[in-house]
Amino acid sequence: MKRIMLPLAVVAALAGMVVSLGPASGQTDKQTAPAFVTTIPDGYRDWRLISLSHEAGNLNSLGAMLGNDVAIKAYREGTLPYPDGTIIAALHYSHAASEENDKIFGRPQSFTPGAPTNTQFMVKDSVKYAATGGWGFGFFIDGKPVDEAQMKSCFPCHAREKARDLVFTHYAP
Amino acid sequence: MKRIMLPLAVVAALAGMVVSLGPASGQTDKQTAPAFVTTIPDGYRDWRLISLSHEAGNLNSLGAMLGNDVAIKAYREGTLPYPDGTIIAALHYSHAASEENDKIFGRPQSFTPGAPTNTQFMVKDSVKYAATGGWGFGFFIDGKPVDEAQMKSCFPCHAREKARDLVFTHYAP
Repeated sequence: MKRIMLPLAVVAALAGMVVSLGPASGQTDKQTAPAFVTTIPDGYRDWRLISLSHEAGNLNSLGAMLGNDVAIKAYREGTLPYPDGTIIAALHYSHAASEENDKIFGRPQSFTPGAPTNTQFMVKDSVKYAATGGWGFGFFIDGKPVDEAQMKSCFPCHAREKARDLVFTHYAP
Repeated sequence: MKRIMLPLAVVAALAGMVVSLGPASGQTDKQTAPAFVTTIPDGYRDWRLISLSHEAGNLNSLGAMLGNDVAIKAYREGTLPYPDGTIIAALHYSHAASEENDKIFGRPQSFTPGAPTNTQFMVKDSVKYAATGGWGFGFFIDGKPVDEAQMKSCFPCHAREKARDLVFTHYAP
């Protein structure tokens, strides 16, 4: 048993070193270039609901915000700033009239998610994303990250919500 | 240890008998009176997202539909009819303009959940709820079940969606 445990412990220790070196590698003393989230976090579609949203106007969007366990705990306990490890996902769909529901209700009233438009993420890592308030922003269309110009547009807008650690979405009870 | 285990096993067996007798008690050969869901299912706020909805007009509602594990599995695998044990929760809130978001976006466009309006459930139990297509309907305001007249209004409307086992909501990818 010891022969198995010892190499595992060594591997774990090495893995820990790699992880802790990760965020620092590539950083200069004064980090200026923002880092983006370019990989979709695993299993986000199974996360719990934070809230939902309807953006009218040009966006014409229905959205659901989901949070990983760290996010849900922080939301429910009112923790601010959000701890490292928090991930918030925003699943956006077109705001589509549901002919099927309207026929049943007998009047035009029902809007449901149409085609997915984009999926966005906020990942809290106060070291890796120090240049953007501790949050890494990710923006995906059809599962692929958008270009850097579009990624850059997230932070300046979220930065206006300083009092709530750059997070717009409130928790829906 | 045995002294503790034996009474527990007996208690568990008795509890099982009570549970299995539960749905049958009060049933006549021809069940006519519908049964309703009058207790809020445990832990529903932690369930996974099925989809969301916006009902305009009089309802003026934003809603999130969550499903227990049986529901999510059935949705993802396209199982019809939904198996016994399926529970679908609909969390409804008022469709409220978010002044806070609109100020940040610089235009009126953002609607988020206002006060909770009601929470509804569909519970699949083909024996207990045989009189209403195998579904028990529950309708709660401020955590309390509404009166029977309002409870009765659920089934006739859902019954129009026979092709999809009385369920309006589609799964949002």
